[in-house]
Amino acid sequence: MTSVDIRTRNLKRPVDVAEYLFTRLHQIGIRSVHGLPGDFNLVALDYLPKAGLKWVGNCNELNAAYAADGYARVKGIAAIITTFGVGELSAVNGLAGAYSEHVPIVHIVGCPSTISQRSGLLLHHTLGNGDFNAFANMSAGISCAVAKLNDPTEIATQIDHVLRECYLKSRPVYIMFPTDMVEKKVEGERLETEIDLTEPANDVDRENYVVDVVLKYLHAAQRPVVLVDACAIRHRVLPEVHDLIEKTQLPIFVTPMGKGAINETHPSFGGVYAGTASSPAVKDMVENSDLVISIGSMKSDFNTAGFSYRLSQLQSIDLHSDHCIVRYSEYPGIRMKGVLRKVVERLDLSQIKVLPPPKFVEPEAQVDSQAVITQEWLWGRVDRFLRENDIVVTETGTANFGIWETRFPANVTALNQTLWGSIGWAVGACQGAALATQDESGADKARRTILFEGDGSFQLTAQEVSTMIRHKLDVILFVICNDGYTIERYIHGMDAGYNDVATWRYKDLPAAFGATEQTAKSYVVKTRGELEALLTDKDFNERKGLRFVELYMPREDAPKSLMLTAEASAKRNAMTE
Amino acid sequence: MTSVDIRTRNLKRPVDVAEYLFTRLHQIGIRSVHGLPGDFNLVALDYLPKAGLKWVGNCNELNAAYAADGYARVKGIAAIITTFGVGELSAVNGLAGAYSEHVPIVHIVGCPSTISQRSGLLLHHTLGNGDFNAFANMSAGISCAVAKLNDPTEIATQIDHVLRECYLKSRPVYIMFPTDMVEKKVEGERLETEIDLTEPANDVDRENYVVDVVLKYLHAAQRPVVLVDACAIRHRVLPEVHDLIEKTQLPIFVTPMGKGAINETHPSFGGVYAGTASSPAVKDMVENSDLVISIGSMKSDFNTAGFSYRLSQLQSIDLHSDHCIVRYSEYPGIRMKGVLRKVVERLDLSQIKVLPPPKFVEPEAQVDSQAVITQEWLWGRVDRFLRENDIVVTETGTANFGIWETRFPANVTALNQTLWGSIGWAVGACQGAALATQDESGADKARRTILFEGDGSFQLTAQEVSTMIRHKLDVILFVICNDGYTIERYIHGMDAGYNDVATWRYKDLPAAFGATEQTAKSYVVKTRGELEALLTDKDFNERKGLRFVELYMPREDAPKSLMLTAEASAKRNAMTE
Repeated sequence: MTSVDIRTRNLKRPVDVAEYLFTRLHQIGIRSVHGLPGDFNLVALDYLPKAGLKWVGNCNELNAAYAADGYARVKGIAAIITTFGVGELSAVNGLAGAYSEHVPIVHIVGCPSTISQRSGLLLHHTLGNGDFNAFANMSAGISCAVAKLNDPTEIATQIDHVLRECYLKSRPVYIMFPTDMVEKKVEGERLETEIDLTEPANDVDRENYVVDVVLKYLHAAQRPVVLVDACAIRHRVLPEVHDLIEKTQLPIFVTPMGKGAINETHPSFGGVYAGTASSPAVKDMVENSDLVISIGSMKSDFNTAGFSYRLSQLQSIDLHSDHCIVRYSEYPGIRMKGVLRKVVERLDLSQIKVLPPPKFVEPEAQVDSQAVITQEWLWGRVDRFLRENDIVVTETGTANFGIWETRFPANVTALNQTLWGSIGWAVGACQGAALATQDESGADKARRTILFEGDGSFQLTAQEVSTMIRHKLDVILFVICNDGYTIERYIHGMDAGYNDVATWRYKDLPAAFGATEQTAKSYVVKTRGELEALLTDKDFNERKGLRFVELYMPREDAPKSLMLTAEASAKRNAMTE
Repeated sequence: MTSVDIRTRNLKRPVDVAEYLFTRLHQIGIRSVHGLPGDFNLVALDYLPKAGLKWVGNCNELNAAYAADGYARVKGIAAIITTFGVGELSAVNGLAGAYSEHVPIVHIVGCPSTISQRSGLLLHHTLGNGDFNAFANMSAGISCAVAKLNDPTEIATQIDHVLRECYLKSRPVYIMFPTDMVEKKVEGERLETEIDLTEPANDVDRENYVVDVVLKYLHAAQRPVVLVDACAIRHRVLPEVHDLIEKTQLPIFVTPMGKGAINETHPSFGGVYAGTASSPAVKDMVENSDLVISIGSMKSDFNTAGFSYRLSQLQSIDLHSDHCIVRYSEYPGIRMKGVLRKVVERLDLSQIKVLPPPKFVEPEAQVDSQAVITQEWLWGRVDRFLRENDIVVTETGTANFGIWETRFPANVTALNQTLWGSIGWAVGACQGAALATQDESGADKARRTILFEGDGSFQLTAQEVSTMIRHKLDVILFVICNDGYTIERYIHGMDAGYNDVATWRYKDLPAAFGATEQTAKSYVVKTRGELEALLTDKDFNERKGLRFVELYMPREDAPKSLMLTAEASAKRNAMTE
């Protein structure tokens, strides 16, 4: 006891560990914390309000992790608190997705006291074998840093380190927080200096060298284009990308995962490039370019319509968060942000050849009001429904592919989980995204969050609609009712029973989850005319709270891009030597 | 190609790997397989019907794992099929619980083809780093065996080995099943010999020695008692335990996790022993015994009311699935089954002193019909509602502690997850248990499955009610509506907002989940009189399908055993050196 007291007495401004941690979360931009209570985190939760943090209280931990993911994609970073074993393991798929897709989430796990751990007690929420590190070990592979807060003399440094790693690497970190550490004292004076979140600078000579090489090829190219992908968003180089476009007017394309990165009403915007699933004009321009400057690419199967890019590495410059590649020359450790900044500053506009981007073909505005709502028609119609500043969340399945066809208004944020592709993610992510805008002040506060969700996927995480209602979030939620897992049908088993789901009365769920007439309204839409009427209805567009739409579409209809990708998947699964 | 063909030509009766695996599942007693489809498991799912297996099609993978757990506890073993990454990781908490609580579940994960794995393709459902073993590594710590089916020449042996390990160790196994192995050929003739699931015999000399030592103390003891715990059920020694009781009439007690192991109407049955939470007469008899024969114990905090046993190791014999301990002498590798069998055969009845067990005090039958339903009253009342052969599932929280007070009719099976304690488990487990009885033939087919669920816990896994409805399962489901996480309130934060949950209209959920008047009926019960009327209503007791009861109880009421255990937990969490 004495040693603790001496240590505490030497602190200039002693604060409890929980207060320290939560103050740091607030400083890096977090305002709401997702998660569930559990007996190993309860005392810590008492500290949230004092740090200016709101507790979400999700329905389960997987949903909470998905929600934190959505929150981070809008607000920049997120936090989730779970309890040892049972809680953290339920969240692990959501955090693996954030690791895969470069989303920064601070995962705080309330765990048994250091004394219980050392004694190897047979506590509930354990494997019964006295191993208190088993779960941290499982999370280590999906975290860019792990901190076990076991020693008060180290804790403040550990916290600052993992939060910085989380932000800079843009991936989850794992913090194991024993019950007996919550009220231990650490140095509060440290809090007066915020954690330095600026990216470390590249080595100047190496960076200059890369910039020179990039400029050499850029100045020489006859048909250069820019292709923006997910990591440009996640690693925060959009300001540099926007400056590049403003200065050069180079034609710019996005991948499916890069959608929303670029103002799609900008005259330089060329459309979505996804290999064979691109529009002919887009495919033509990108694949015939003699220099593709690819920024933050993630060339996964679903992001490339089944690896269907036809680009030559000899005509590519790949800029990444932790390395760059020019043709076949690799520059490990050189971060794209510094390179892009200098490229913008140093390029010689007179040497840049700018071709006009492909023309966007407006979808037909005419509506056959009795016709069923097809995928092709829907995603062209959604253009005019969306408004500037909307947040659009699409679920893995028809929505994630369909949205490729939708041309966004300016400043739309698009959320999708195309690499990890865990169905059910979008419901949680939508809750988190909507809460993130609610947590903003000023203009960003009034953003609408719009979710396109499949019926099969919805069933995995349906109860999180209750959290949207509980927190009075402004959400427009379309459940695409098409009788099951359509994306799976296109991969295998078009008529197989295992691709069916139970037939729910979706529109009745908000009320069962506690909604009132004020907090939610349900709609059923079966024809194009009904959808047209709904999408132009003033009350639907302007009202607050949840608008929950049962949107009926044919069971075996899918966007063409999905069909192409599914076919490639099926072939790859079956391939034998 | 040629080498594959030569190998296949040498098989006497070639069968596809999927057919081999599923035929084995059927042979070891599985009739329904839980899980969700995913593109890496779809082709395999086509093989289920041919092997006589039914596909459940759960709403999400965590629920599916919980359901498999419940199925295994009733049917002896269970299987779940998930897809790589996203599916398997969602299930991991459920499987960790099965590992912790010794429940045998075969977890089959459909994964990318061996060719894709070797090429390190950037596929969806991966971490994007080319590591295809990351998830198998995460599951290794919660599996008693792992098999990666990469080589057709090894696969049949691998499958037989892991299924045997699963059954004998009574814990989950993990099978990684690449898409390109599904249709590979293996030797079908092996299927004519079922897998040997008999437990390996103990070394005879060592076993005889242990039996002699046990008998020496048993014959000498003046006040011997038997205490039966969870692993007696999970490691299948109940026949030996029942023989011991029938032969000796020794007073026999169960722990909370051992409830249901013993016929509670048997004259030798003494009640539930859980340290300070036991009834005075039980505590007195067990703690003053000079020989406690403890069978399959799991002395976890929640199973012992906060480690409150007062037993001396000098007066204990502990029999376990893989070792025995007599006083302080340990016998690693000696399994209890053989020891118990010989003890029963060889004991000298004339030397056994048998005291009468404590008398069971019948709860008051009188009903104040206007009174609220308190925990104390409810669990005494449930006795008379239960029937022989019922399956009773209780959720972690008030129900799991309350059920200690309920004296069961004969042959009731009790399911609880007292060690792992993951809230939400019981909804899934109830689905699995009810399906397991539906899969039985004869008398076991007509068993009712009754679930006592807390409202907070229900919200985690609520959608699995839809699976109960879809499969027309006979379930009586009580949602204890008491406004949130009562067990957490007793540990910390009685009035804290984080222990509240959203107020749902629970009774409306079955209809929203697709129920009709035939498949489900909802009830609301707020007073003792209303509950009394419902529990004695003929239609309620006899009808088929789902009976869904909103059961209102006071928010801050809890069984005394919960209060004692929660207090101990809170103290342990706060303890500092």
